Amino acid sequence: MHRMRQEVARARSEGGAVDPVGGGTGQPLALFTDLYELTMLEAYFRHAMTGQAVFSLFVRRLPAARNFLLACGLEPVLDFLETLRFSAEDLDYLRSLEKFGPDFLDWLRDFSFTGDVFAVPEGTPVFADEPILEIAAPIAEAQYVETFVINQMHLGTLLASKAARVVAAAGAKPVVDFGARRIHGTDAALKAARAFHIAGVAATSDVLAGKRYGLPVTGTMAHSFIQAHSSESAALASFAEVFPETVLLVDTYDTLQGVRKVVELAARLGDDFRVSAVRLDSGDLGELAVGARQILDAAGLTSVGIFASGGLDETAIAGLLAAGAPIDGFGVGTKMGVSADAPDLDIAYKLCEYAGVGRLKLSPGKPVLPGRKQLFRVSEGEADVGDFISRADEQLPGRALLEQVMRDGARTGAAPSLDRSRARAAEEIARLPQAVRALAPATPPYPVGISDELARYRDEITEAATR
Amino acid sequence: MHRMRQEVARARSEGGAVDPVGGGTGQPLALFTDLYELTMLEAYFRHAMTGQAVFSLFVRRLPAARNFLLACGLEPVLDFLETLRFSAEDLDYLRSLEKFGPDFLDWLRDFSFTGDVFAVPEGTPVFADEPILEIAAPIAEAQYVETFVINQMHLGTLLASKAARVVAAAGAKPVVDFGARRIHGTDAALKAARAFHIAGVAATSDVLAGKRYGLPVTGTMAHSFIQAHSSESAALASFAEVFPETVLLVDTYDTLQGVRKVVELAARLGDDFRVSAVRLDSGDLGELAVGARQILDAAGLTSVGIFASGGLDETAIAGLLAAGAPIDGFGVGTKMGVSADAPDLDIAYKLCEYAGVGRLKLSPGKPVLPGRKQLFRVSEGEADVGDFISRADEQLPGRALLEQVMRDGARTGAAPSLDRSRARAAEEIARLPQAVRALAPATPPYPVGISDELARYRDEITEAATR
Repeated sequence: MHRMRQEVARARSEGGAVDPVGGGTGQPLALFTDLYELTMLEAYFRHAMTGQAVFSLFVRRLPAARNFLLACGLEPVLDFLETLRFSAEDLDYLRSLEKFGPDFLDWLRDFSFTGDVFAVPEGTPVFADEPILEIAAPIAEAQYVETFVINQMHLGTLLASKAARVVAAAGAKPVVDFGARRIHGTDAALKAARAFHIAGVAATSDVLAGKRYGLPVTGTMAHSFIQAHSSESAALASFAEVFPETVLLVDTYDTLQGVRKVVELAARLGDDFRVSAVRLDSGDLGELAVGARQILDAAGLTSVGIFASGGLDETAIAGLLAAGAPIDGFGVGTKMGVSADAPDLDIAYKLCEYAGVGRLKLSPGKPVLPGRKQLFRVSEGEADVGDFISRADEQLPGRALLEQVMRDGARTGAAPSLDRSRARAAEEIARLPQAVRALAPATPPYPVGISDELARYRDEITEAATR
Repeated sequence: MHRMRQEVARARSEGGAVDPVGGGTGQPLALFTDLYELTMLEAYFRHAMTGQAVFSLFVRRLPAARNFLLACGLEPVLDFLETLRFSAEDLDYLRSLEKFGPDFLDWLRDFSFTGDVFAVPEGTPVFADEPILEIAAPIAEAQYVETFVINQMHLGTLLASKAARVVAAAGAKPVVDFGARRIHGTDAALKAARAFHIAGVAATSDVLAGKRYGLPVTGTMAHSFIQAHSSESAALASFAEVFPETVLLVDTYDTLQGVRKVVELAARLGDDFRVSAVRLDSGDLGELAVGARQILDAAGLTSVGIFASGGLDETAIAGLLAAGAPIDGFGVGTKMGVSADAPDLDIAYKLCEYAGVGRLKLSPGKPVLPGRKQLFRVSEGEADVGDFISRADEQLPGRALLEQVMRDGARTGAAPSLDRSRARAAEEIARLPQAVRALAPATPPYPVGISDELARYRDEITEAATR
């Protein structure tokens, strides 16, 4: 059984869905965890605490500039859970710390994830306090995976949520992910491209993300190419000779002069001129786009588009388009890639049930809703109007959003394609109230309530905890 | 030769210095690049542009809340450069894009990095416009590696710079990295722990970072452990039984009541009580620390320390210590881990010389200093008072900071240990003017000048470019 699971893991790795696996004798990220997960595991082990636990993942508060979050990161989490095994090298390392008993380390040798997972599909809008993912498993298993689960759900949801705003601001104009160079590290850059695709971004510049996730990749030329030539005209001609339908970068020395050099190139090439667009990457993009459009149109190059990049985010894009800037597409890098205006979410993964009894915390500002839960989204016609969080077995009006995605440590079905998740995101976002889809803070925010039964259960558990 | 280089790469991988490598038939991150690097490479290839290029990496402007940056990320970059090879699978993928000619893809089969690298050592303070790393290589090689080089230098420098502030705020009190769960992805979390160590952070909670980089790891218990027990007292006793010298978390229900339960536990255990500290993780940490200290001292538990965590950054820590909060150590997570107040740097990697001729850009706000350069730091007594950027072959007063770290694609020496880089950072930071080491913006900022010769060369090249 273990062997089989490893084979599956290796097959998946070759297919590109998970991080590349080294020796095949364990998950290379199995030790991606906080040390306290392991000390707690040993304490559970010593005291034979093997009861079923439920942990719930949710965001406590939305950043001020987010009316909704777009859930993302589930599939990397499921890949991790399905393949979680410690290698001999991992166990050797843990032994070297001289913190853990040998019988506990022996027990870790056979450790794997055998639990159930319930989650909203990737591409689902979610709000504060709503359960995004719940794990029901023997407490050691549900506890151990906390760090990785939060890390990947945080990353995916943070970046998909930011990208959804950028895509909304750009309207019908395509947005391209230029973030790889300043997104925090390689894992985040790759997962960002994946999250951005789900959120509606048209393509990524990151070749490895294209390879790993089958995403459209795009890109043309940098300033260095221009600079390496004796003149800008020579550089533009040289590049267009190799890639006739390219986008030419025009701002290395003087943007509008650069556009005029493209016009000269068109005149020289005649019918062989097939350049698709010019790219502006600095300066006042709105003003330069107007100037570039005039120059191109005056030369009859009406089919040459204008692509803009350079420090863009949703606010800048909305401003450019509102001012009527004739821009046909946007390259967006750092500000989307690090979610610069809100680079983290107040996300938590909290024990809410153990051995059949609801659990909570009373720490100020950090409430937990006890027990396994369900999330219902209520519609009026084509529009969603509000959500209710309920106990897991309740039936309320509206669509139930949490689905069982893993049973006894195995996926309940194939992962949806990224295009399916992208379509879901577009459909679900379109159903949100207009004010919630807008960039400005929605007043009032999207309503999220708690079912009477869940409220009663919470009060009961709170009373028991404070008794 | 190629085979040997791969053996070296594999050996290094086993030693844990680089990301785990898959099949051994190429660098798993070789395609971590922007597509435009490849299109430019094909254009260079078609036009037989094989001249030597120099690219320079620098930060254009420091974030408002940074008086200096701490250079970090070099060793992961050198690991990448030494092992860069395309696998057959990589080339198959590129072929599938139908963008590239077969002769160009054949040429990529033998592509590797054969150039020279000059850099300031990790743990060196740097300022705006200063060259942090320069690569001199055939243009295709120096161009291709841009995305990965920026990504890793940005990540390391961003996080080391933030951590240096947190460490400064904490003074003699240890800071522990709790960031793994909300740092952006697994690569960033691992590299963060590495950068934090260089910046003076005492330990990390991330077990895999500990394994990979040989860092001290630490951690004790989470709220879920408390919640899973029938009472807080039972949970504390249970944990202390397994880990007698642990830190006990006391804020799950009511912080000061939690401290009193620790006092009760001490009374029950008598001489067997060896708990080292309590941890506060929510509420008004300063006030609660005072209350906790009083309760512990009144019970004679003067040797039990107080460890604080929960949304901390350098400002909060400085505030707590200035107010006299009796806190003995700090767990710092998200705000340090994503550099929340400045989550990106305006970092660039720019062509500054090709075929022996200096190159620059004139794009607004994006100047480039032409040619290979050196960086001199001028001291008065024990203190550094200002820097000069010069041409590479100049000799100015002060210490030259850029060192050759790679020659013909191979390291010039062994990587310094992380402890050596950490010691360097401490020494170098201690030499900075007090106002530059402080948290508040330094007025005036640390002075950085350009040598007369470099200024003359820049003017000459500018004139040629605009002629």
